[in-house]
Order: sequence, then structure tokens, then C-alpha cells
Amino acid sequence: MQVTVFEQEHFQGKCLEFTSECCNIHDCGLDNIRSIRVESGAWVGFEHHDFQGQQFILERGEYPNWDAYSGSLAYHTERFMSFRPIYCASHQSSHMMIFERENFMGRCTNLCDDYPSLQAMGWSMPEVGSMHVQSGAFVCYEYPGYRGQQYIMECERHSGDYQCWKNWGSHCQTPKIQSIRRIRH
Amino acid sequence: MQVTVFEQEHFQGKCLEFTSECCNIHDCGLDNIRSIRVESGAWVGFEHHDFQGQQFILERGEYPNWDAYSGSLAYHTERFMSFRPIYCASHQSSHMMIFERENFMGRCTNLCDDYPSLQAMGWSMPEVGSMHVQSGAFVCYEYPGYRGQQYIMECERHSGDYQCWKNWGSHCQTPKIQSIRRIRH
Repeated sequence: MQVTVFEQEHFQGKCLEFTSECCNIHDCGLDNIRSIRVESGAWVGFEHHDFQGQQFILERGEYPNWDAYSGSLAYHTERFMSFRPIYCASHQSSHMMIFERENFMGRCTNLCDDYPSLQAMGWSMPEVGSMHVQSGAFVCYEYPGYRGQQYIMECERHSGDYQCWKNWGSHCQTPKIQSIRRIRH
Repeated sequence: MQVTVFEQEHFQGKCLEFTSECCNIHDCGLDNIRSIRVESGAWVGFEHHDFQGQQFILERGEYPNWDAYSGSLAYHTERFMSFRPIYCASHQSSHMMIFERENFMGRCTNLCDDYPSLQAMGWSMPEVGSMHVQSGAFVCYEYPGYRGQQYIMECERHSGDYQCWKNWGSHCQTPKIQSIRRIRH
């Protein structure tokens, strides 16, 4: 796993290579991250230090500016302060369950594929109450077609349990989830 | 196939239901489209009338505002003037080929799955020279993880041939493509 981060857009300015997590880029002598090249592995970037705030899934490829890696987020901050690798390589397959209500209650459905629209595959509402990741890792999105706020869900964190939208991420403000996909290496 | 479009955000204001294409929403008495509910089918929305300008893939679900359906585009316009259904339902499987250079030249690869990172599956550069869609329909994205400019590629249009980035869409300005996925119903 390797990622190169740059202080300026379009892979310019001071740059650093990482092969493991960074909890605060200020401690590494960078002011901010404005472009990224992911050489290998899947990573998650965070708006604030210590893995807080809005999340960005980062797969292999080039991200020349903030718009490229942020996707369509709730608010435009241009801050990228910490990041870590996603450990999903050991899983041949990814499995999770989504539940209608908090604390794994109500109607539920098994997921083991990519779903650009949960409603198209039979989930009747634009919200999810709670989730349990049995294996691998997923990224969940606020809107259909992998758009809007992103939440990284891993079996190796919180025992894969996400009881309520308040622990999907420190930035999460609603239970809206309309598309979900696996994270693969 | 059915879509409901609203003149105001959050499904407010004047609304209209459609089951087929609309080449100019002004002709239907709407000033603009600011929220959308896709009831069934897959659709593509366009920035300008007559299916011109930036493209947005629209799958079943709720899009309460411009950010929700636009994703991360090159420029922020808040214009949504025409849309049409995507005819991919008749295909059990989707197949396309991507080529290194224009006019179907150079190295090529077959695609029949979803690829959040073309580079992760072995495509060595962030650009694609040309494409041919043999069956079904795909959405191609400028950046990894289904972000940035979107281009809808269908076997039933242009005989599935996209010789050069200049005919990927009227808004296309570079050959950058870093993620591709199938459009399914």
C-alpha cells in the first residue's frame, strides 16, 4: 500500500509518500493536502486530524484537486488532514446486512454486491437504520449512483457494528443512504 | 420507466411526471429542475436542452437538490434542461472495450463488470483513447470511485462507437477516465 500526497493541486509543491496511516499531516510538515496519487491499496481520507469529519474513499489513481477526491459533499471545506489504509484485502468476499431501524431491528437485507440504487434492488426507502458488516469493507453513499456523503464501513472496526447513523462518522447528520458498494483491492 | 421532476428543491413547487424523454423542460412549462424522484428505470439528465452539456446518470431514488444529482462536476451551473431514458434493459450483460489511442488503436481491454479504479485492474494510465460498447450501457467517470465528469456510453447510440474524447459528450474537455460501471435496471 502506497500513497503520495502533495501540498499543491496537480501534484505540485511539497510531497510525501506513505505506506501506513497519518493521523495529522501538520505533524509531517504539510499545511494541507491538495492532490493525491494512490499507487496501491484502498485508503480513506478525512477532513480533520485523527480521522474525524467528512470521509473520502481513495482507490488507485490520480486526484488532481479537492473536487476530484471529495465527490459531492455536504459542504465545501478543502481540508484533508488525516488518512489511513482500509484493510479489506484478506477477504475474498464482502458481506453486510442493512436494517430498517436502529440497533439491528426491523426489516433487513443481505448485501454482497455493488448497488448503485438500493431502491432499485427492493429497499423501499431512502434511509437505513443500522448496519452490520460481516466481512470485508463497503462504502455507503447518501444519494443514488455513489454520490453525496460517504461512509466507510469495515468489519475490522467496531466489530462491524453500526447501530445508528450517529456512529457512521463524526460528520453524519442523517440516516439517508441510497447506494452502497464493496471496497476491493 | 417513470420520473417526477420538481421546479424547487426537496420535491417542492410545480412538478411533472414523465415516462419518456423531454428535450426541453421550458416547453413543458418548467423554469428549471431542482429536485427529482426516479420511480423506475435509469435516466440521463443534461445541463442544456436537446441533450447537450454535462451529463448526470439518474437511477431509482431521491435527489433533493442539484448537488445530489450532479455529483462532482467541472463547473457548478444548477441547470438541468433535458433528460431521456437509457435503454439497457434488453441486455442481460454489458460489454465494452477500451483502447489506448483514438480510433480503436493501441492496447485494449474488455470490460464486463464495475471498475471503481481502472488502474487497480491493470490499465496503466488515467486516460482512455477510444471505446466501443458491444452490449448494454456504461457510465464512465473522470476520477476513481465514480467521481467527476460523467459520460453515458450506450450500444444503441452511435453504434456503440466512441472514437475520440470529443464525441463522449458535448461538454468533454479531456480524455481522462479513471472509473467505469455498468448501468443496470
